[in-house]
Amino acid sequence: MSEFIGEFLGTFVLILLGNGVVAGALLEHSKAKNGGWIVITAGWAFAVIFGIFVAKTFGSPGAHLNPAVTLSVAIQSGNFENLIPFAVAQISGAFLGSVFVYLHYLPHWKKTTDQSAILAIFSTEPAISHSFSNFISEALGAAVLILGIHSIFSEANSGLTPAFGAFLVGILVWAIGLSMGGTTGYAINPARDFGPRLAHWILPITNKGKSGWKYAWIPIIAPFTGAGIAALLLRWFG
Amino acid sequence: MSEFIGEFLGTFVLILLGNGVVAGALLEHSKAKNGGWIVITAGWAFAVIFGIFVAKTFGSPGAHLNPAVTLSVAIQSGNFENLIPFAVAQISGAFLGSVFVYLHYLPHWKKTTDQSAILAIFSTEPAISHSFSNFISEALGAAVLILGIHSIFSEANSGLTPAFGAFLVGILVWAIGLSMGGTTGYAINPARDFGPRLAHWILPITNKGKSGWKYAWIPIIAPFTGAGIAALLLRWFG
Amino acid sequence: MSEFIGEFLGTFVLILLGNGVVAGALLEHSKAKNGGWIVITAGWAFAVIFGIFVAKTFGSPGAHLNPAVTLSVAIQSGNFENLIPFAVAQISGAFLGSVFVYLHYLPHWKKTTDQSAILAIFSTEPAISHSFSNFISEALGAAVLILGIHSIFSEANSGLTPAFGAFLVGILVWAIGLSMGGTTGYAINPARDFGPRLAHWILPITNKGKSGWKYAWIPIIAPFTGAGIAALLLRWFG
Amino acid sequence: MSEFIGEFLGTFVLILLGNGVVAGALLEHSKAKNGGWIVITAGWAFAVIFGIFVAKTFGSPGAHLNPAVTLSVAIQSGNFENLIPFAVAQISGAFLGSVFVYLHYLPHWKKTTDQSAILAIFSTEPAISHSFSNFISEALGAAVLILGIHSIFSEANSGLTPAFGAFLVGILVWAIGLSMGGTTGYAINPARDFGPRLAHWILPITNKGKSGWKYAWIPIIAPFTGAGIAALLLRWFG
Repeated sequence: MSEFIGEFLGTFVLILLGNGVVAGALLEHSKAKNGGWIVITAGWAFAVIFGIFVAKTFGSPGAHLNPAVTLSVAIQSGNFENLIPFAVAQISGAFLGSVFVYLHYLPHWKKTTDQSAILAIFSTEPAISHSFSNFISEALGAAVLILGIHSIFSEANSGLTPAFGAFLVGILVWAIGLSMGGTTGYAINPARDFGPRLAHWILPITNKGKSGWKYAWIPIIAPFTGAGIAALLLRWFG
Repeated sequence: MSEFIGEFLGTFVLILLGNGVVAGALLEHSKAKNGGWIVITAGWAFAVIFGIFVAKTFGSPGAHLNPAVTLSVAIQSGNFENLIPFAVAQISGAFLGSVFVYLHYLPHWKKTTDQSAILAIFSTEPAISHSFSNFISEALGAAVLILGIHSIFSEANSGLTPAFGAFLVGILVWAIGLSMGGTTGYAINPARDFGPRLAHWILPITNKGKSGWKYAWIPIIAPFTGAGIAALLLRWFG
Repeated sequence: MSEFIGEFLGTFVLILLGNGVVAGALLEHSKAKNGGWIVITAGWAFAVIFGIFVAKTFGSPGAHLNPAVTLSVAIQSGNFENLIPFAVAQISGAFLGSVFVYLHYLPHWKKTTDQSAILAIFSTEPAISHSFSNFISEALGAAVLILGIHSIFSEANSGLTPAFGAFLVGILVWAIGLSMGGTTGYAINPARDFGPRLAHWILPITNKGKSGWKYAWIPIIAPFTGAGIAALLLRWFG
Repeated sequence: MSEFIGEFLGTFVLILLGNGVVAGALLEHSKAKNGGWIVITAGWAFAVIFGIFVAKTFGSPGAHLNPAVTLSVAIQSGNFENLIPFAVAQISGAFLGSVFVYLHYLPHWKKTTDQSAILAIFSTEPAISHSFSNFISEALGAAVLILGIHSIFSEANSGLTPAFGAFLVGILVWAIGLSMGGTTGYAINPARDFGPRLAHWILPITNKGKSGWKYAWIPIIAPFTGAGIAALLLRWFG
């Protein structure tokens, strides 16, 4: 039960801060308006760090915050029993996190008329719509995430403290955002995309448009695919 | 007495560097003019780090720098005797810090005619004036601050050194600024807002306008509320 | 064999993330478009950090990722047997990394018509073409890299963990990029430039121009020269 | 002798990277052109980190890189015998560092006609010329530097490694740059300003103007004053 709460609260913080920085950069009248890519990617990196700290503090020492990470751990350990409950906790936390982003920026929504920007504050959209390439981008991003996490916590990094490890995972997500986020906005996490998309669909946001459900399968299936393949390769050859 | 001095000097440094970066980004002729949101939020993050180091060095091992943090510690420990003296020290330090910002940028004030920018160098103003939402923003920001600090220093982060802990609190404030600062400018600290607002009111600043006292209660009451609720929840469930 | 694999995979990650951030900042329709110099240099810094972690995890404890670094280690140790096999692994990894960048950003190439920008996503070009100065820039950058690495891992830094050491090497490359990259784009690594240039030459990129082979010798020979001279000086006087 | 060499080489690296980032941001045709304040302040921060590492590696464990820091150490210890030799080493290193910046960016000088920008790549100029305020700015910046260094290395930061300490001094200079650099460009170091100004005066730079000698006394005397007062206060009350 405690691990479930940790994943729920950690993913809540991840999305509150992660989608929060996108809201800050895109909503009209925000003081962070037009902060640019360095602001968005830094915000997501720090969201990861404090999402991890919160998850660990409230009972989930693995601090996955991401069903694709949970899948990769399951593949590497051979134990899949956490996959469904963790995913439920992560999606619920992500949903609640974006509800709080909605509340936090409440008076800004009606000033903002760009429907694509409003959706981008919740879930990802591709820069160029192209299912095959978008799938590759999301799968490759998730694979780099799994490879990076594996390498940070490998025996090669002896003397790594838990806090510096969490910091490095945040920097890893910063790296993925800077270097691979330009195409699809680096969901690389099914919960990060699906929970907020549900919130976008349900919440009574002024000026909102469609919730982009046609694209929604890619940031769900592709991260699982990329993380799964990476985990299998690491299990066989790592 | 020593803790009082630590809080005073630490909050002095916090505001000298924190309000200093806003001055640099907003005052005319400043070399940092138009540095943007990444500059402002990075400056505040580093201001927190060195405010903490100074507070600890001069006798306050807790290094609160913020009456809302002191309140949350009081709620969690059940001991409220530090609340008033710390708040006095923090507000005094913040007042003096912004007097030094005034002196540091002395020739720039008369070149700057934007009254809103001048006030923003001292205390916060909402992007959109809306008491209910502004209150929620400041309370939620302070709650994330308390939750984040609690998580950084939890047992989950074994092996954390004091210096890396202070560094992470700075990154936490960077995260809050990037992700939640777009609405009200993330005071999340009654002393950070009230001390400098007093300084703005008193100092003979060329081109200054009103000191925004109508809004002043929100960045005082809301951070106490958010931090207090977070501390209660952590005491009951954490 | 294992060291060879570590160098191959580490350099693959270095180029996937490093050339990836240039692609993100330069390709049309990318969400990172116009992120600017801070985005590009941060992306390369983090690429170095995770390239090192991956190299170490997969068997190369030295994690050179760069034939000029391998040369400097050979000069300091007097053992040159790794030079050729490491260089082959590094160039192969760099080649594959930029093939993956090509795939990751697949739909963006045909939207981009600037041939110079497309080449810059693979290999470096000088801001001002001037062989003597370009050679000096690349040699000097590589010499600072070797001097910096030597200093990070010197006995003066007692208590350095492997993870913080790798982090600092990333910051070193960030520093070189910010401060010395404006002239030739800081290849400072023959594999980083030659492998991707080969990929640019071979890949069927829409709108690509020439691969800049006339300039290609400088980011190969100059980093070897600068790193070699630095290593000799360190061996004699360090 | 060894400490002298450490200070010389460390300050050489400090200025090569520090003035290098200003060159990158200001010279025409540079790839870092218009990188902005975050680029300049980050570059100087990292210049400090690697200047410290190099100074320590080559024999100066204190790694002052700055005669005002040496003065503050002398005041706190009561031993002034290092002051002159260290200052000579630091100024010489700074001079050589900016000669190398000149060489590194060689073909860019003749493309750049802004004489103020060219001088800014060597030594500091005030945003608004006002001797009293400029003096206060430089003295206050140096005082914060001394207070910050004292706090980083105080007993309150138990468990601090030398490498993380150097990293934090870099972040401190980043903080001072972001928050206090807008007025006079934060020399806060007599060697950093005087050595490169000499180089500007001597070097045959195309399009260079006057070397600003009328202002030169402020970034020499003011940092000594601010650092000296801070050191006295720390000796009496710290």
